[in-house]
Amino acid sequence: MKPALGVGLIGAGFMGRTHTFGYAVAEKVFDLSVRFDLKTVADVDEENAKRAARQFGYAEAVSDWREIIDDPAIDIVSIATPNTLHKEMALAAIAAGKHVYCEKPLAPSASDAREMALAAAGKGVKTQVGFNYLCNPVFSLALEMIEQGDLGEIRSYRGIHAEDYMVDKSAPWTFRHDSRGGGALSDLGSHALASAEYLLGPISSVLGDCVTVVDERPSPDGPKAVEVDDIARAFVRFANGATGSIEANWVATGRKLQHVFEIYGSKGALVCDFETMNELHFYDNRCAANRSGFRRILTGPKHPPYDRFCLAAGHHIGFNDLKAIEVAAFATAIVDDRPEPFGFTKGFEIQMLIEAIEASSAAGQWQEIGPRSLFDQARKGQ
Amino acid sequence: MKPALGVGLIGAGFMGRTHTFGYAVAEKVFDLSVRFDLKTVADVDEENAKRAARQFGYAEAVSDWREIIDDPAIDIVSIATPNTLHKEMALAAIAAGKHVYCEKPLAPSASDAREMALAAAGKGVKTQVGFNYLCNPVFSLALEMIEQGDLGEIRSYRGIHAEDYMVDKSAPWTFRHDSRGGGALSDLGSHALASAEYLLGPISSVLGDCVTVVDERPSPDGPKAVEVDDIARAFVRFANGATGSIEANWVATGRKLQHVFEIYGSKGALVCDFETMNELHFYDNRCAANRSGFRRILTGPKHPPYDRFCLAAGHHIGFNDLKAIEVAAFATAIVDDRPEPFGFTKGFEIQMLIEAIEASSAAGQWQEIGPRSLFDQARKGQ
Amino acid sequence: MKPALGVGLIGAGFMGRTHTFGYAVAEKVFDLSVRFDLKTVADVDEENAKRAARQFGYAEAVSDWREIIDDPAIDIVSIATPNTLHKEMALAAIAAGKHVYCEKPLAPSASDAREMALAAAGKGVKTQVGFNYLCNPVFSLALEMIEQGDLGEIRSYRGIHAEDYMVDKSAPWTFRHDSRGGGALSDLGSHALASAEYLLGPISSVLGDCVTVVDERPSPDGPKAVEVDDIARAFVRFANGATGSIEANWVATGRKLQHVFEIYGSKGALVCDFETMNELHFYDNRCAANRSGFRRILTGPKHPPYDRFCLAAGHHIGFNDLKAIEVAAFATAIVDDRPEPFGFTKGFEIQMLIEAIEASSAAGQWQEIGPRSLFDQARKGQ
Amino acid sequence: MKPALGVGLIGAGFMGRTHTFGYAVAEKVFDLSVRFDLKTVADVDEENAKRAARQFGYAEAVSDWREIIDDPAIDIVSIATPNTLHKEMALAAIAAGKHVYCEKPLAPSASDAREMALAAAGKGVKTQVGFNYLCNPVFSLALEMIEQGDLGEIRSYRGIHAEDYMVDKSAPWTFRHDSRGGGALSDLGSHALASAEYLLGPISSVLGDCVTVVDERPSPDGPKAVEVDDIARAFVRFANGATGSIEANWVATGRKLQHVFEIYGSKGALVCDFETMNELHFYDNRCAANRSGFRRILTGPKHPPYDRFCLAAGHHIGFNDLKAIEVAAFATAIVDDRPEPFGFTKGFEIQMLIEAIEASSAAGQWQEIGPRSLFDQARKGQ
Repeated sequence: MKPALGVGLIGAGFMGRTHTFGYAVAEKVFDLSVRFDLKTVADVDEENAKRAARQFGYAEAVSDWREIIDDPAIDIVSIATPNTLHKEMALAAIAAGKHVYCEKPLAPSASDAREMALAAAGKGVKTQVGFNYLCNPVFSLALEMIEQGDLGEIRSYRGIHAEDYMVDKSAPWTFRHDSRGGGALSDLGSHALASAEYLLGPISSVLGDCVTVVDERPSPDGPKAVEVDDIARAFVRFANGATGSIEANWVATGRKLQHVFEIYGSKGALVCDFETMNELHFYDNRCAANRSGFRRILTGPKHPPYDRFCLAAGHHIGFNDLKAIEVAAFATAIVDDRPEPFGFTKGFEIQMLIEAIEASSAAGQWQEIGPRSLFDQARKGQ
Repeated sequence: MKPALGVGLIGAGFMGRTHTFGYAVAEKVFDLSVRFDLKTVADVDEENAKRAARQFGYAEAVSDWREIIDDPAIDIVSIATPNTLHKEMALAAIAAGKHVYCEKPLAPSASDAREMALAAAGKGVKTQVGFNYLCNPVFSLALEMIEQGDLGEIRSYRGIHAEDYMVDKSAPWTFRHDSRGGGALSDLGSHALASAEYLLGPISSVLGDCVTVVDERPSPDGPKAVEVDDIARAFVRFANGATGSIEANWVATGRKLQHVFEIYGSKGALVCDFETMNELHFYDNRCAANRSGFRRILTGPKHPPYDRFCLAAGHHIGFNDLKAIEVAAFATAIVDDRPEPFGFTKGFEIQMLIEAIEASSAAGQWQEIGPRSLFDQARKGQ
Repeated sequence: MKPALGVGLIGAGFMGRTHTFGYAVAEKVFDLSVRFDLKTVADVDEENAKRAARQFGYAEAVSDWREIIDDPAIDIVSIATPNTLHKEMALAAIAAGKHVYCEKPLAPSASDAREMALAAAGKGVKTQVGFNYLCNPVFSLALEMIEQGDLGEIRSYRGIHAEDYMVDKSAPWTFRHDSRGGGALSDLGSHALASAEYLLGPISSVLGDCVTVVDERPSPDGPKAVEVDDIARAFVRFANGATGSIEANWVATGRKLQHVFEIYGSKGALVCDFETMNELHFYDNRCAANRSGFRRILTGPKHPPYDRFCLAAGHHIGFNDLKAIEVAAFATAIVDDRPEPFGFTKGFEIQMLIEAIEASSAAGQWQEIGPRSLFDQARKGQ
Repeated sequence: MKPALGVGLIGAGFMGRTHTFGYAVAEKVFDLSVRFDLKTVADVDEENAKRAARQFGYAEAVSDWREIIDDPAIDIVSIATPNTLHKEMALAAIAAGKHVYCEKPLAPSASDAREMALAAAGKGVKTQVGFNYLCNPVFSLALEMIEQGDLGEIRSYRGIHAEDYMVDKSAPWTFRHDSRGGGALSDLGSHALASAEYLLGPISSVLGDCVTVVDERPSPDGPKAVEVDDIARAFVRFANGATGSIEANWVATGRKLQHVFEIYGSKGALVCDFETMNELHFYDNRCAANRSGFRRILTGPKHPPYDRFCLAAGHHIGFNDLKAIEVAAFATAIVDDRPEPFGFTKGFEIQMLIEAIEASSAAGQWQEIGPRSLFDQARKGQ
């Protein structure tokens, strides 16, 4: 039998279920050299924790997450709680020498995120931020095409992540409407920014426009002011010279997963919309003019790791499958002691971008992105 | 801890992996009252069996499937072997009092399928045929809309299942090209027929047109004659008075999962194409003429059991998730002793339709579908 | 100034307007060596004729169409009346030595159509049947691709022409519901059949299924029996060996111009739906498997005669532009004394197919298509 | 016979042909109280003028456009020349009391445009700027839906006009690459801005980002510097409180007519892309959650003036048809002495927005849009 990595999950809500799904599926579909031993689930609501343990198959349920930190049999800590709690939990887990898989946004501030990334680097543990959309095989395909020159010189980029779950004015005030919880930019824009940098490399400057559409929302204590953006837009410059725009929007009526990228190069273009997430659209300038058009590539076994899920193209992987791919990548980073694909350093960088967009919007002018080295930042931040 | 159902899997290939995925995910995402205990995997190739046991988490690997039949700790037998082997395995499993989950097409002939269904009925075990596409929430949504009268009187139907995995003439001869293996009609048409009857009820007569496009294919012994259809078409009459057409096609260049239904009624229409399987398109005649159009409904948590997978609409369930839904439905039928959604009786009925289409094509004329009762059939078949 | 062809129009309704549009636009966008002199419009309703003359710019309005026949200054007679009137008008025009541009379906029967085609051939005048959809540049592009071998060996075809203008049971009985007026097969199926033969060549046999959905419709004299099909389906064999299916449907709720062709070959596939009529979708098997997909080719100036309308691709030609292309082709055939693209002979051939589908449906068996030579037919028909 | 408006056309190139098409078709499809008498076409290249006269049906061809101005029989002057020539021609035509139909962008500067608009107002003639896309019936439908409250409170807007005709670095330097000719913002952004204001009303401030991608282009004298933007982006504030973004891009590889608007309101959303210009997509929040989705409305006779072109929905109007609608609207404004839909005042306002975006981009900060009254502007501009 394969050796096991012990798993502790903090947060028994929806994202906790998704993490668990990731562990369960990853070990079935990937030839990992390890299996996952679901040890303990923690939730402040003990009933919730018990229900989750029973349903998800964790051996134990606890209400105090520190029991997970203290358990030497646990190797990986999954953090699926509101982002304002991430730092304390992650630092404790790191200090205990555990690998940490944390949902995004990583922290309420870049400074917190840097502290978390520095701690992990210092301790030598692996970390992962839940940028699950990047695990869609369309991303590795797109990157391969860019790197092979299929698009020529990249000139412009459009990135969107829009949904509509905050459209209703009477939707209640939550932690997401608090300045530390982050708004659409933090919740959705983090995905859009991660996609942009995955595909085109570092963003070097931003010009932001953050807008609050619904000024207050109901709370048990009456109407409460919304402190965050409902829509955030930014113009961006990439270090490679391309320019582009980003939009995060959680009041985009009718949009359920409009996570879009459009990349225009001198030789070709790529377009993807996650509402049809198993498709990548490619335009090739080198085709004869009377035969050219956007080509709808349906992901399939030629686009790894799709082949792990299904042997026929066009049969679709789903949202949860992305989580399994993410877990497998994380486990592989741990076992082979390789760099993580989307570790806390990446989470910190995205947080820097978010803060720069907010600052730019407040100032009404362009903002440069500072040096990305954690250590430079640490020095600069002193 | 929940009580367990012991599982034995026969066939360690791709569909076997898919079954295993179904068991693993079903117990994480559904609140089942049981869990699955993956006992034994059998494969004629013992190395395959061992690899599968290790990767999928089965406790034991065997090369003789009869060991699974003989194991009293096994409650469910999953059969994921070529369809010519189904009957022997299923009858043995049924005789041993086990519930049987068998891939489609159920058997090479309606008469074999009837025998299997009768055996299961006689023994009182539950059976399931792998019509996984029917587990897509678009189907229950479509059925609900039909039953609530959103389409009015149903008038016409188009059903297609087209893929392109046999386009290449040099693709080798396999068991699927043998008359008992079944051709496109059996392999893909079975899905198209199952969808048609799920949505509109029983088909009462057919007019078939079965065509072989690639006459012979390479085999180790040189070119070998293809005995089956590459394309099968049928006009159909439904018992409810609607008329329609069905096409199965495995040489449809460029089509990866063109499993399509189009339903036209007096008040509305529904269209679905599995290449965008998270969408159902609905046209409502009752809208004002200047506001009407096909509406692209993205499946979401309001379309159970999508909510088990994700709490946001439009985030996609995938091919393997359908298998988890299928397993959960089967387990529920077992535990609650309820009728199975797609049991061997349904598998037998689909096989009847397949044979009727083949017979109609050979005769060049309409063919009535005989009585569907297993017992009438048994008597008639004496 | 260019020499003029005198034009007389019979029928001042909608299709008459469309013909007029065709003349007006053709002379602006094509470098024709002639212009059109709109002489006379005839309509049984004299007020209608006058209104049309005024609005469309015809010099004269008459109520008796024979005045057009008798006018030596008229070179082309446009017939835009119900199809039961076509024969008498066309034969008179031909006898008077005029070129005839007649709406489809050409005649209520193949025998009538043959008589019309023979008369035109005998007199040496040019004829045109209004298969305007064939004038869409996607058709010449598709044909070019087929002829150049981009699709390899053609294996299967799907053709549909579906609309929804007869969905409502209370829509009144019209000449279209009379057996001589023709049903969906005649009105819409004629287009689907013309497209199929344009692309793949002659159909050699058919297996039909004609269905009446709404049995009677209101008339001034009370409910009146519908004598025609609302839905007609046919399986077809092409002389080139390909097989396919055709559907005509005027009760297809929600469909406005579902004129579809799908062509599957050994090397590629083509798909077109006139609801997006400026697009041709091409799948090329020769692309690398991880880069292949249906390519959405937007018609543009590289697809003549689109360039006559607009110099930028993707800017759309519309329904009426097809009529201008049709008129230009007809005028060119007249001036250069070249064969017409879609003359009465083609109209006769389509009518033969329609009758064969009807006969096949009535008999419930395959029907061969007879010899296409007008003279053979004439002899056979004696 | 109807009274005639005499037409003179300056510029015998592609847009000249399009204007002529507009005149020819408008009088056939609309019940105008006037007809158009195509008098004279002027082009600096006399051969061009002669060819155009012959092909388009103008009575005379001249090389000096002033002959058109001096001809008392000419009522309307169509200006289809490069935009740097518009002002002189338009002012002369206005001074001669003629109505002027001028292509966009109206002038190289807002100050020029204001002068032209003031001259027209002073003389009491009608003017029209060629914002032909606004003539698509989807626009009047969208506006009607917004005004009827179908979208609730409008919150956000995305506008794009992207094409790819400048992708190739070796495409030669033209007047469009000169600072007075205007770049992508002027050529394409003018359409995007006109659409935005048509739908949501005045823009009150902008934050621009204008980018030159191809720095120099070949000219007969060797490489010549490009003085304009290839991509222009802007964030915008509307006077009604909504926020949005605009992008103009003529290096958007693969895009042929990506003229897009997306409007998100509290109750609904509208999306349109001119690459499928006969469709408007509407999401209605008030639908039941399990039945809601973007609805693809195909334009048809219920969306005037589509009914003038075709009596069946979904049969498509094309690019040139928009020009006919534009001409009809202009002629109606002239005959009935009503305000023009898109007169020089609107052309001036769009030019103000273009300059504000350029200025904002240069300054790197938000720019307010000044008062729109021509007279205030005139005073302010003194």
